[in-house]
Amino acid sequence: MKLQLAIDRVSIAEAIEIIQDTKDYVDIIEIGTSLIKDFGLQAVREIRKQFPNLVLLADIKTIDEAEYEFQAVYEAGADIATVMGASAISSILACQRVALNYNKQYVIDLLEVHDSKLTQLQSFDDAIQCIHLASDDDGEGLEKLIIEQTAKLSKNAKIGAAGGITLANINILKKNNIDVVVVGSAITKAMNRTEEAKAFYTAIHK
Amino acid sequence: MKLQLAIDRVSIAEAIEIIQDTKDYVDIIEIGTSLIKDFGLQAVREIRKQFPNLVLLADIKTIDEAEYEFQAVYEAGADIATVMGASAISSILACQRVALNYNKQYVIDLLEVHDSKLTQLQSFDDAIQCIHLASDDDGEGLEKLIIEQTAKLSKNAKIGAAGGITLANINILKKNNIDVVVVGSAITKAMNRTEEAKAFYTAIHK
Repeated sequence: MKLQLAIDRVSIAEAIEIIQDTKDYVDIIEIGTSLIKDFGLQAVREIRKQFPNLVLLADIKTIDEAEYEFQAVYEAGADIATVMGASAISSILACQRVALNYNKQYVIDLLEVHDSKLTQLQSFDDAIQCIHLASDDDGEGLEKLIIEQTAKLSKNAKIGAAGGITLANINILKKNNIDVVVVGSAITKAMNRTEEAKAFYTAIHK
Repeated sequence: MKLQLAIDRVSIAEAIEIIQDTKDYVDIIEIGTSLIKDFGLQAVREIRKQFPNLVLLADIKTIDEAEYEFQAVYEAGADIATVMGASAISSILACQRVALNYNKQYVIDLLEVHDSKLTQLQSFDDAIQCIHLASDDDGEGLEKLIIEQTAKLSKNAKIGAAGGITLANINILKKNNIDVVVVGSAITKAMNRTEEAKAFYTAIHK
């Protein structure tokens, strides 16, 4: 299981500080959607420049104009980019194609994806399929969602989980064979974020 | 019927030039998703600064973190912001609430929204409901989609249409009581964009 740290609602300079403080205990650094929508791809370029060797995921949440967005975000320095599972299949196919061309990874974000669409997404088993509870739902029901959705996903796909994850959920994620755990404010807003990242990293990797 | 001009995949300076050339024949200027994802909210702030009196729609395509994104984009100067119909209802409710607080408008983008969700969205009849064909689908099937989806939307909501619209479709849109027609590259990439905007504006308003 890998730890992905989502960084949101801060300036680029603050994001760089957070990464500095936590990078020894994080597997994937997520440049959150808010950083991209607030500052554009400059957020990706600056963070890449500061950290040439970290694995960077840009949570661009593509839902249309897939080829344009994926090319732009990989060119800006992302190793992994995200597309919404709620997108048209034609859009997800475009993301898959661009990821393959760039030899990079992509995540299908399953936020609010209904069951019949989940079945259609099984063929994208080269993606990380990320089970995602809306942040506007305040973490209610993530465990139930994981159990229901993992049953419908391809057994070959890597599975991520995001939305209201705390140290208390880690064992449930392990039990359900989650590959990537996305944690945000539980680490970034902690009193001591280095220690908190270490606590998550230890719990995940032990 | 109103004409909304979507501006995408250009620099902020080029966007300002396009607006300069077309604003006399456009009702709503759309700062496209690509401008926001490429340059952040700076795109909205700069265009607002140049054009204090135009109606600006920011196509931020919110799908999570609704309150944060809608507040940020209205503060940056947008009159209208967009949320994906594919979002959690809790997210759309947050957008509705922020729009009301700011006394601004919001659009629910119906891209890839399935039928049962359309029915749930009927209660958001203060929004502009935008029927939207994925750009990755190259304009195939917009007319069919309009007929199918308008039947399922609230009779009180304003209806928009986007995705592959050309001068040849305008009569079909009028016949189906579309309130806002979104046109992008058919105008922005025309040899003479002022003349092309005028042709659309005339066809829409006559």
